[in-house]
Amino acid sequence: MKNTAVLLLSCPDRKGLVAAIANFLLAYEANILHADQHQDGALGLFLMRVEWDLHGFSLPLADFPRMFAPIAEEHQMTWRLAESAHKPRMAIFASRHNHCLADLLYRYQGGELHCEIPLIISNHEHARCLADAYGVPYQHVEVSRDNKGEAERVQFALLREHDVDFIVLARYMQVLSENFTAQYPERIINIHHSFLPAFHGAKPYHRAFERGVKLIGATSHYVTDVLDDGPIIEQDVARISHRDTLEDLVQKGADLEKIVLSRAVRWHLDNRVLVYANKTVVFD
Amino acid sequence: MKNTAVLLLSCPDRKGLVAAIANFLLAYEANILHADQHQDGALGLFLMRVEWDLHGFSLPLADFPRMFAPIAEEHQMTWRLAESAHKPRMAIFASRHNHCLADLLYRYQGGELHCEIPLIISNHEHARCLADAYGVPYQHVEVSRDNKGEAERVQFALLREHDVDFIVLARYMQVLSENFTAQYPERIINIHHSFLPAFHGAKPYHRAFERGVKLIGATSHYVTDVLDDGPIIEQDVARISHRDTLEDLVQKGADLEKIVLSRAVRWHLDNRVLVYANKTVVFD
Amino acid sequence: MKNTAVLLLSCPDRKGLVAAIANFLLAYEANILHADQHQDGALGLFLMRVEWDLHGFSLPLADFPRMFAPIAEEHQMTWRLAESAHKPRMAIFASRHNHCLADLLYRYQGGELHCEIPLIISNHEHARCLADAYGVPYQHVEVSRDNKGEAERVQFALLREHDVDFIVLARYMQVLSENFTAQYPERIINIHHSFLPAFHGAKPYHRAFERGVKLIGATSHYVTDVLDDGPIIEQDVARISHRDTLEDLVQKGADLEKIVLSRAVRWHLDNRVLVYANKTVVFD
Amino acid sequence: MKNTAVLLLSCPDRKGLVAAIANFLLAYEANILHADQHQDGALGLFLMRVEWDLHGFSLPLADFPRMFAPIAEEHQMTWRLAESAHKPRMAIFASRHNHCLADLLYRYQGGELHCEIPLIISNHEHARCLADAYGVPYQHVEVSRDNKGEAERVQFALLREHDVDFIVLARYMQVLSENFTAQYPERIINIHHSFLPAFHGAKPYHRAFERGVKLIGATSHYVTDVLDDGPIIEQDVARISHRDTLEDLVQKGADLEKIVLSRAVRWHLDNRVLVYANKTVVFD
Repeated sequence: MKNTAVLLLSCPDRKGLVAAIANFLLAYEANILHADQHQDGALGLFLMRVEWDLHGFSLPLADFPRMFAPIAEEHQMTWRLAESAHKPRMAIFASRHNHCLADLLYRYQGGELHCEIPLIISNHEHARCLADAYGVPYQHVEVSRDNKGEAERVQFALLREHDVDFIVLARYMQVLSENFTAQYPERIINIHHSFLPAFHGAKPYHRAFERGVKLIGATSHYVTDVLDDGPIIEQDVARISHRDTLEDLVQKGADLEKIVLSRAVRWHLDNRVLVYANKTVVFD
Repeated sequence: MKNTAVLLLSCPDRKGLVAAIANFLLAYEANILHADQHQDGALGLFLMRVEWDLHGFSLPLADFPRMFAPIAEEHQMTWRLAESAHKPRMAIFASRHNHCLADLLYRYQGGELHCEIPLIISNHEHARCLADAYGVPYQHVEVSRDNKGEAERVQFALLREHDVDFIVLARYMQVLSENFTAQYPERIINIHHSFLPAFHGAKPYHRAFERGVKLIGATSHYVTDVLDDGPIIEQDVARISHRDTLEDLVQKGADLEKIVLSRAVRWHLDNRVLVYANKTVVFD
Repeated sequence: MKNTAVLLLSCPDRKGLVAAIANFLLAYEANILHADQHQDGALGLFLMRVEWDLHGFSLPLADFPRMFAPIAEEHQMTWRLAESAHKPRMAIFASRHNHCLADLLYRYQGGELHCEIPLIISNHEHARCLADAYGVPYQHVEVSRDNKGEAERVQFALLREHDVDFIVLARYMQVLSENFTAQYPERIINIHHSFLPAFHGAKPYHRAFERGVKLIGATSHYVTDVLDDGPIIEQDVARISHRDTLEDLVQKGADLEKIVLSRAVRWHLDNRVLVYANKTVVFD
Repeated sequence: MKNTAVLLLSCPDRKGLVAAIANFLLAYEANILHADQHQDGALGLFLMRVEWDLHGFSLPLADFPRMFAPIAEEHQMTWRLAESAHKPRMAIFASRHNHCLADLLYRYQGGELHCEIPLIISNHEHARCLADAYGVPYQHVEVSRDNKGEAERVQFALLREHDVDFIVLARYMQVLSENFTAQYPERIINIHHSFLPAFHGAKPYHRAFERGVKLIGATSHYVTDVLDDGPIIEQDVARISHRDTLEDLVQKGADLEKIVLSRAVRWHLDNRVLVYANKTVVFD
């Protein structure tokens, strides 16, 4: 099993940043496994991801924040540190269409997703047996037009209780309140069944069919308080033709959604995604 | 060289349509090379494309309309007949970005596009030497905010004079008036540099860059009087990443635009495109 | 639910074939829903797929063979008739890597695959709980170098007993004997984890990695007695880079394999695939 | 215009490499614009590309080799330095199919390819007028089975005379001798019209057609003395179907070849390609 640390940071771009970080890590004998950086020239921003082997690294991670603080302050860095040994706790919100849920669970079981799944919350009972087959706790929380606030309170309590780090909306068809999303900034991942910004909002396949597009798409993004407008993590498309009915679009789209969402979740878990200016950098 | 005829038709769907057409053609000993059909269940519409060898076909094409009329009337068909030996006359409208123009001219010279190009109209002088190299007449018609009506009158006169059948807007950046487009229904093909309906209108690459999409697109469509809203003939996309600057998007997009526009033009020339309900059927 | 019939046929190409079939069907008041044809000019071959509504069709399907025989004989047709109401019985052969199996089972349960699955045969116990969750019988038949003949006898008896129509090899890593495959001509569908004909045979991802290709592929094909050489039904590819390890190839490839195999199975079930000259026509 | 330097290097992987290079560059006040690295764990190899602004860089590039030597020696680095201000001199070898040549010339004229093209060598006269239109010298060197050695001597003399840095084989259909290729290691870029290693050697489209593949490909690679076996720089594919004739494959393939070759040439010119173990790293 991997035993590495990942440092993700952003700061104003200037000379000497790479050297400062490389020297800091070298001082504790880090063996750097990956280092990737990005500059946004227009914004004068420097972003970096460094991953190093913890085997032989002479600085206990508990001391990292204190020792790294002077460098971070000098360069006005925003940063976070992640350990590969730590498995984040991911909740999945599901609804009636469970292809994304089934796909995530299969990947989880096969070891492809480096996380714990302590909780599935659904506003339907449909997927309980699926959850049972994978041994994942399943909570049915009904949501209606009238009980939205109450439902979110129940959901929030469950998330707290299970110590959830981030949430994946696996075709969860309810819009979350601003109040709710504000609790999980850059920690709610949604899959929208269109090539955003085309067809944001409701019934994207219907509208794609009506418009006569030749490709359909799927988009995974972080949820913000503007509907379908958060930073895009991944997108992909599939070809359709005039022969495809609306049902064909839904079916072909389902395959897209699974792939696109699973990529976004994996990259998030690998600490490869940095958000800035409502966009993402996905380090590879 | 191919010596075939193509019949394109649409009519209310009912039993016996395929038999009616097959029997009519067989009566004149047609050897059918391709026959493709499509039904739109929701609209109750039948659409068909048949191509047959004219070698051995015993009905002179001049007599086709008269002989086919009873069948067409009985089934309320809208139809048109095209001969592969006939080369439509295509005008290209160009502007400052000439990659699509250069691409079309190279394909034209290589025999890939079965048409004549009697005329290029541009609001710039940039591409005159390119046109000269391929021996295609080039007309500079200046367009400004104030002279739009006058410019269109000049353009229209040129199109008339050169007996133009249809127009390709090869990154021609001017919006044509309703009056103008009404003269060429389903006979003006545009390339828009986005995945429509995302980023319709001006500066799509700028907006794609700003939105942080992970794929860029290009769309070729027939021009109607609603901007970027006509029936889509072809679309395609290319992957980009956070590393791509706005200039990279423009460059990668240029390759997309060429391919997408050239496919749409070729299909149009092959009489493979049928428009209905603001969509296209592209027979293959 | 659909209640249609599909006629698939091939014969020497000549005039009047479309008319002959259309007239035959019209005589019994068939409402044709789809008709698609293909000619292979070099081989002088005509291939066709017609699907019609059985509602209102006045010829009982039991009488179809007798009534269609004269036309079939006259034109030397090879043909078969399929009813949408009939669900073919599909066996899945699995082994240690069960992503394709899990994917097929999920699609089956969701109604995407129009078939019965009376039997999974595996040379491992790994996927028994998965099969149980979907309520599909699971038979463990051990296969070793020494017992191959005996194992195939057991497998064959199981297939007989469960009245299996065709077999899907869902990453079943054993080579079937000529004797076995001869029992199921064009009725064994395999998924090979490369872009055939590149990397046929063993360990394709290893060899793709070593060769430094920039795309990996997956191929679904009918099994013949030449390894990885049968008629290709579907292929697709995914982009990789120098950053991808062998393990990444295996993981990205798994997503490809699932999609490619599921498409091939669906098209086979929809009676859209015709084989000739070791190729397939996939009617769309 | 860009005024940058690029350092490409590879060496045995060990701790402190990033720091060593970052410190060296910082000592001369380099503003690093891009830094990308790759480790091959199995081979214990470290590869890196660093690009920095020469504006404000206090070490004259003429002195770079001398000053960098101690670091390079200490870490057993293989390295090369490139200046963006320097335009490499590229020769294009062409033959009868000139779509790649036309594409490269158009991109060259539009400023997309940062190079000089002092010379086109062709064994046919076909493309002379094209070369003339772009003002690029065109040399016809006839090649037959009998005069191959002599032809290569003439070609080699022309390359020398025009001070050519590297060669692009733009569908040049002659196999170069080992003797010739040895003169330009990692400096001859070929486009092969298949998805290598499938269909290496002659007539790949014919063989793809015969095999019944569902995708066709194109591969750009550096030429070595084993035919179609050199390090792959870029590959891509396009979907085909049973409807596509051999001629359609050739036409669709031509669009692929242009794109794939142009990407490979651009990446080579941007000093983004590093070769090791008969593979390429393409830094992005």
